[in-house]
Amino acid sequence: MKAEIITIGDEILIGQIVDTNSAYISSVLNKIGVSVYQITSIQDDKAHLLEAFAAAQSRTDLVIITGGLGPTKDDITKHTLCEYFNDELELNQSVLDHVTYLFKEYVKKPMLEANKTQALVPSKAQILVNKFGTAPGMWIEDKDTVFISMPGVPYEMKGLMENEVLPRLQEQFKLPYILHKTFLTYGMGESAIAERIETFENELPATIKLAYLPSLGRVRLRLSTSGPEQDVLEKEMAIQTKKLLPLIDDIFIGFESDGELEEVVAKLLVDHNKTIAIAESCTGGQMVERFTKHGGASQYLKGSLVTYATQSKIDILGVDPTVIDKHSVVSAEVASQMAVNAKRLYKSDIGISTTGNAGPSKGDSDAEVGTVYIGVATDKGVTAHHFMMGNHRKRVIGKSVNKALELLRDVIRKEG
Amino acid sequence: MKAEIITIGDEILIGQIVDTNSAYISSVLNKIGVSVYQITSIQDDKAHLLEAFAAAQSRTDLVIITGGLGPTKDDITKHTLCEYFNDELELNQSVLDHVTYLFKEYVKKPMLEANKTQALVPSKAQILVNKFGTAPGMWIEDKDTVFISMPGVPYEMKGLMENEVLPRLQEQFKLPYILHKTFLTYGMGESAIAERIETFENELPATIKLAYLPSLGRVRLRLSTSGPEQDVLEKEMAIQTKKLLPLIDDIFIGFESDGELEEVVAKLLVDHNKTIAIAESCTGGQMVERFTKHGGASQYLKGSLVTYATQSKIDILGVDPTVIDKHSVVSAEVASQMAVNAKRLYKSDIGISTTGNAGPSKGDSDAEVGTVYIGVATDKGVTAHHFMMGNHRKRVIGKSVNKALELLRDVIRKEG
Repeated sequence: MKAEIITIGDEILIGQIVDTNSAYISSVLNKIGVSVYQITSIQDDKAHLLEAFAAAQSRTDLVIITGGLGPTKDDITKHTLCEYFNDELELNQSVLDHVTYLFKEYVKKPMLEANKTQALVPSKAQILVNKFGTAPGMWIEDKDTVFISMPGVPYEMKGLMENEVLPRLQEQFKLPYILHKTFLTYGMGESAIAERIETFENELPATIKLAYLPSLGRVRLRLSTSGPEQDVLEKEMAIQTKKLLPLIDDIFIGFESDGELEEVVAKLLVDHNKTIAIAESCTGGQMVERFTKHGGASQYLKGSLVTYATQSKIDILGVDPTVIDKHSVVSAEVASQMAVNAKRLYKSDIGISTTGNAGPSKGDSDAEVGTVYIGVATDKGVTAHHFMMGNHRKRVIGKSVNKALELLRDVIRKEG
Repeated sequence: MKAEIITIGDEILIGQIVDTNSAYISSVLNKIGVSVYQITSIQDDKAHLLEAFAAAQSRTDLVIITGGLGPTKDDITKHTLCEYFNDELELNQSVLDHVTYLFKEYVKKPMLEANKTQALVPSKAQILVNKFGTAPGMWIEDKDTVFISMPGVPYEMKGLMENEVLPRLQEQFKLPYILHKTFLTYGMGESAIAERIETFENELPATIKLAYLPSLGRVRLRLSTSGPEQDVLEKEMAIQTKKLLPLIDDIFIGFESDGELEEVVAKLLVDHNKTIAIAESCTGGQMVERFTKHGGASQYLKGSLVTYATQSKIDILGVDPTVIDKHSVVSAEVASQMAVNAKRLYKSDIGISTTGNAGPSKGDSDAEVGTVYIGVATDKGVTAHHFMMGNHRKRVIGKSVNKALELLRDVIRKEG
């Protein structure tokens, strides 16, 4: 089954928001065997919507539309769907009841006329219940294409996809199986990897595609395939994995299916019954945020400190000022003390620290922009690692956090 | 001038990455008076690329393409451009010199054959120098349309847009002026706002569009207009702003042109020569990360603590355990102590804290999911504020940080 996604909203086309809905929808469709052929973002403009609907219908079996379902005048998707399907809006009592319920239970304010209009839906649409908002999802079948329209608010759309759209698609259609396997590597550029695995790539069966995705000091290699039989795909993927792994042994970190790197580390910590504490300087809280953005961090994370100012490294983290004077605040010695002291303060099993200069200009030390030290303290001792991360602030921070996570993973695996 | 953006890459269509390039490109084009008509994301598939190029050319004057320029086999944009323009690849000496220089100075590894192929470009293309990578940008004029092809790596693409594409577009074309004004509001839903400002909306001149953008406890109202004369637009926008502001006085926070809320707060802190320290529990480092992701935070940020575990609130932040026993760790009293103690520990002018339960399940307290207390301490005393933020973890955290930033802004403005 081939799908297209149409996201509607002026805010996307003027760059006021990043369209994250498309990536989410693509990823969950992919998991149930629906491949996305095109993603199109357009303004709230009737003629353009009609053109995009027709173009998508001519190419695919499933058209997923988000946005333009709000109660205000700038939202025109519902009226345009009526025009496209030669249909009319009619009052849907179950939607009206749901909107009334939401206002009574959650909004706790009187319902306005505009809110009631949310219950007007095209007569040809089947309703998909939106638990988190007043705009219902709509499922409209026309010739051989299914149109699904959902609000653009991400958590409402996600609720609709999970609770309504995906189960219905799986029930109604016989979907093939799509399989991706993504190998995370670090320390080598994509051209060098391509040269090294050239023979492997040339010998890949035509049914398997290989892609290279470079980002923040790593390259992801993705093998993709699809077909009607899961067994066959998995066997073929296992064969190729077995061929590829020895070729990239020295640069391979893990599979992406294991989750984000911080999730891999989190799982290792929980499995080994270990806790961590974090002391961040140049990474400014991004390391702890990587852990806490997922639920369950309280199982292994004792806490963290961001000691941005040099004085706070001394006052709060107890770094020895004579060490700072002697070696500079951006040094292996300071990174080590930060890691050890964070571990001691928070009474954790592991302490990890960053100190460096992410730029754009020099800070409390003379260290060149991009210089980063990472300290790792355990019961067995402390190590500090030196890196040059380039001169682009966001990338320096992102690469430093990735590197710290890799060091954490290695030390947990090694020391158990 | 009307533009379309085409982003190329299987990783977008399977949802492995979020396409952030389009939002960036749209936003910077908009600022120089180019409006984006459509954004299209497609796979690395020759037939589909050709179809998308033709469709975009038929609708617009400018087609901006990102992605598919890597040195590996999955990247086919350059060959497809040749086919589309009936052109051939030829070796460009200046690109080859640049690639050779990058390898010598930065990569410090021998150049591979694959890297040299980066210097093969369509003969009809003018080269745009990519300071940050080996794939050059390309500018191809065909009939009345300009095609621009850039690599998909965000920082390479951004460098090309800033240094090459935008200046050239401004030089070569007479562009109109596009003006947006975005009003940030909080505390009222979009329908209620729409009802309140209905007369204003109905009386808006046809040249000005109004949009409502709800997100994380706020609604942004955006007025947009465009035309050849900046003066005329600014005058008209000033008139409408003067009409709208009194209608939303009680819910208005500021204009979006002032930057992200944390940037507004950062500027206020620097202007008032004040420093802050942050103690976070339920927000898990996201507040400090909002500040440190921008440069220059060391001017006003002394540091932060994430005290996730209750014991670390006692050990490190010095919260009184009897207060925790009496009022629970999620309470106004604990929030107040956290803010006061963070201020004292870091020797800052202001201390701000969060404690609450972001979910998904209950933590170290019995507080209902969504319960959040925010403490603000200054030299004049401490206040704690109670909120119910719903039951969606990411939204609870996001709304809490927004609310904390609003409280910070208010206190700096008030106490100066």
